[in-house]
Amino acid sequence: QQKSKHISTFHGEYEEKEKESAFQNVETNFSNVYGSDLLPAWNGEECTKHFLHEVVDIIFSYIKKTLDRKSKVLDFHHPHQLLEGLESFNLELSDHPESLEQILVDCRDTLKYGVKTGHPRYFNQLSSGLDIIGLVGEWLTATANTNMFTYEIAPVFIIMEEILLKKMQEIIGWEEKESDGIFSPGGSISNLYSVLVARYKYYPEIKTKGMAALPEIILFISEHSHYSIKKAAAVVGIGLDNVIVIKCDERTNCLCFNVGCYILFQGKIPLYVSATAGTTVYGAFDPLVNIAEICEKYNLWLHVDASWGGGLLLSRKHFHKLSGIERANSVTWNPHKLMGVPLQCSAFLVHEKGLLQACNQLCADYLFQSDKAYDTVYDTGDKSIQCGRHVDVFKLWLMWRAKGTGGFEILINKFLELAEYLYKELKTRNNYELVFDAEPEFSNVCFWYIPPSLRHIPKGPERDKRLHQVAPKIKARIIEEGTTMVSYQPLGDNVNFFRMVFSNPATKKADVDFLLEEIERLGKDL
Amino acid sequence: QQKSKHISTFHGEYEEKEKESAFQNVETNFSNVYGSDLLPAWNGEECTKHFLHEVVDIIFSYIKKTLDRKSKVLDFHHPHQLLEGLESFNLELSDHPESLEQILVDCRDTLKYGVKTGHPRYFNQLSSGLDIIGLVGEWLTATANTNMFTYEIAPVFIIMEEILLKKMQEIIGWEEKESDGIFSPGGSISNLYSVLVARYKYYPEIKTKGMAALPEIILFISEHSHYSIKKAAAVVGIGLDNVIVIKCDERTNCLCFNVGCYILFQGKIPLYVSATAGTTVYGAFDPLVNIAEICEKYNLWLHVDASWGGGLLLSRKHFHKLSGIERANSVTWNPHKLMGVPLQCSAFLVHEKGLLQACNQLCADYLFQSDKAYDTVYDTGDKSIQCGRHVDVFKLWLMWRAKGTGGFEILINKFLELAEYLYKELKTRNNYELVFDAEPEFSNVCFWYIPPSLRHIPKGPERDKRLHQVAPKIKARIIEEGTTMVSYQPLGDNVNFFRMVFSNPATKKADVDFLLEEIERLGKDL
Repeated sequence: QQKSKHISTFHGEYEEKEKESAFQNVETNFSNVYGSDLLPAWNGEECTKHFLHEVVDIIFSYIKKTLDRKSKVLDFHHPHQLLEGLESFNLELSDHPESLEQILVDCRDTLKYGVKTGHPRYFNQLSSGLDIIGLVGEWLTATANTNMFTYEIAPVFIIMEEILLKKMQEIIGWEEKESDGIFSPGGSISNLYSVLVARYKYYPEIKTKGMAALPEIILFISEHSHYSIKKAAAVVGIGLDNVIVIKCDERTNCLCFNVGCYILFQGKIPLYVSATAGTTVYGAFDPLVNIAEICEKYNLWLHVDASWGGGLLLSRKHFHKLSGIERANSVTWNPHKLMGVPLQCSAFLVHEKGLLQACNQLCADYLFQSDKAYDTVYDTGDKSIQCGRHVDVFKLWLMWRAKGTGGFEILINKFLELAEYLYKELKTRNNYELVFDAEPEFSNVCFWYIPPSLRHIPKGPERDKRLHQVAPKIKARIIEEGTTMVSYQPLGDNVNFFRMVFSNPATKKADVDFLLEEIERLGKDL
Repeated sequence: QQKSKHISTFHGEYEEKEKESAFQNVETNFSNVYGSDLLPAWNGEECTKHFLHEVVDIIFSYIKKTLDRKSKVLDFHHPHQLLEGLESFNLELSDHPESLEQILVDCRDTLKYGVKTGHPRYFNQLSSGLDIIGLVGEWLTATANTNMFTYEIAPVFIIMEEILLKKMQEIIGWEEKESDGIFSPGGSISNLYSVLVARYKYYPEIKTKGMAALPEIILFISEHSHYSIKKAAAVVGIGLDNVIVIKCDERTNCLCFNVGCYILFQGKIPLYVSATAGTTVYGAFDPLVNIAEICEKYNLWLHVDASWGGGLLLSRKHFHKLSGIERANSVTWNPHKLMGVPLQCSAFLVHEKGLLQACNQLCADYLFQSDKAYDTVYDTGDKSIQCGRHVDVFKLWLMWRAKGTGGFEILINKFLELAEYLYKELKTRNNYELVFDAEPEFSNVCFWYIPPSLRHIPKGPERDKRLHQVAPKIKARIIEEGTTMVSYQPLGDNVNFFRMVFSNPATKKADVDFLLEEIERLGKDL
């Protein structure tokens, strides 16, 4: 660094003349240019501009490839291969800087050896697809690089969070004045909030005195609830033994949380029920109205985990499946699932103003000064169990602007039509069996592929034992080939089966056909 | 939508001919173009490409403006103003889509009415600045749009996490074979992990039986510890009353966690000490070696919260300030603070392999199938209290590649030089007073501005009462003018004072001069 003399002016021009950017050439040559040549380096503007556009070209090529059905969903390598380094792609960190040319190569390789979660034939998780507006939302969020704890440093995002929460509460059917909420890093943390808030509501002394001051409390879930409620119970010191798991069928049509359970746990206090709107594997909807009645009768907190199913509230055709959700005390709803918002975007909503704040606030003076010049009710960060909190709202807000509520509805209806299509296809093909034979209520469809070698074995333990091996073997081959991705799992008495879900806007009926043909192609010799 | 007939081919060409993109013109005109015209829309390539580059131009203009000292750090509006809507910028969500032209306007306005956290004169939080490589890292992460729970869908990022954790553990001074860790959504969640893991280590029955099975345990912190340890105690059911806060001076040079405290709490079991490497306000370093000795003697878990100070480990000049950290059982270290990585990026590191997994795992079948085709030890998601987990590692990995360890060192040394410079400036100016008169150990410098009207009042309650009003009033004016941003707070017996911190690569000495002049300009009539 060449230092010039110190020029201390009121408006603060640079007092040091830094290294001038090495980037002089409009032609893109980054081989002798480094990160230190980018802004805020003196004269770094041209270099930065070219570099950013170069990155966007890389990203755009990747997106095109992602949407090209002839390209693979993934190019699989084992962990040890990536750790040891592939040709030209080694992940080592050194003391010395790499050139921007190498950084661009690293970007290309990172995408190349990753999984194309936006590929029309990627069905592996509840979150899939790549919404361009959502993507741009994340780019802007990264540029703004701020934190959600105070209005002071995130004014626009704090107001957007309020507007989004209000909209979601209104859609659920809650009065604005009685509702509150927060965006959190994922559905598990949102579900954790539900347990925290419920416990605090009944036993506010928990905050200062801890569990020692409480009677033994129990939580109720169904066997198809997401495992995050159990995780929450372990985290908050309630313990897994105090989570009562209610047996039910695939459609959770049993009266899950009945008086029997209540009586069973004499001596322990039933506190909380988590009902699920859209179970992870089967896509079922718990009977919310019935559960709400029981909760009201016995004064239990009703949480509805609509992480997956919440998006259906935007469909005039399907929202009735969540009927009763308006009677919940709290709701988890993940726009990063059915609504296609980039990861992560999860809302925790609670039907009582002030509770979240009371439960979590500690009033740290260095952030939440009470003598600020604006209405500090907008310093919402103390509602959180986090301190710094990533801005997850902008991408959702921008997507909502770009699609309108109606745009989400069109997408979501399409996902359910695809599930219907798959269900009908499976019924017509005799090499496939449904895990349970009922028209899909949601976008999940669960099925077995029965290879020819198993077709003549009667249903029973012998066939089950062999069938249990089929899905993992096919999945291993699919990953090796990289042509599609779909998940499998066992559940209860059902041996390993495939779970299809639709949440990818790029997926078409032909991709469903492709999946079924591909499973058959790779599994018929098993 | 015009539908053509169903063409079901093996390789799955589109079976529906969708609406063709309305974007035909290479000239940028987005007024009649909508989100539904972007990819994956048929023929949406050109439109998408132009749109992405247009967004990058908006972002680039914003970055240039951010780095221009003549531009404001913020253009302040009150919450009700943003809620009601400004000229051309209203945040409402409707049923109908907005054009891409409007989306671009929304992007511009969102940045315009936000806070420029990368501005050379933004000093408000521990995280500031905008690293272009880190920014690009976030863009790519958003494009990849995947989740950290399994190797299957995030192979490259899982390996990057392992490499980064290994590097950080090595820098701390831990043996690789005995170390573990995870990236989490912020320092507070990392600190929460430390309490969870410590509790599980001593009382593994906590997971199933809850706090009812445990004796009453207590945690120790100092009065300058971050409030997140208290939050964690409330969350996990230990309770705030069981967090013992040790008094100490600004430099935390007292023997914080002495035997006295231990004896005081007969009947309750001391479990855990959180020492801080770089306190939030004063930037102090707890005497880690002394605290480690006490913890070893009494068999307490030692957590070091190096959220803020961890970066100093990369400086050969300053790493000795964290001497003793290698004796910690766990460490929080936030690369999004001193190392300038975009928000969020926080590592929780623990010096015992397997503990994090044992504490948190629930082995959900639908994610963590044991019959996968690769080494499932790399399905690290069950270590987490989250399920879905945002990819926070790529931006850090890419920055490390671009800077090398040496690049971070240069930056960090510069931040501490700026603190030294400010300290010396304050000493020479008689309208300023230091909160405590000692050379800064870190990048924090705390001070009062004494307006002329207070200079002749002797130190004492009367002056304190008036001085307490000064910083908030100046801050309110600064925000109104938008020329800079710096935080203030009271602490212990000290009335409201300014806290300066340096973590912004764009900041120069002249910006420090500017701040002092600006405070004087806006405060001299108080």
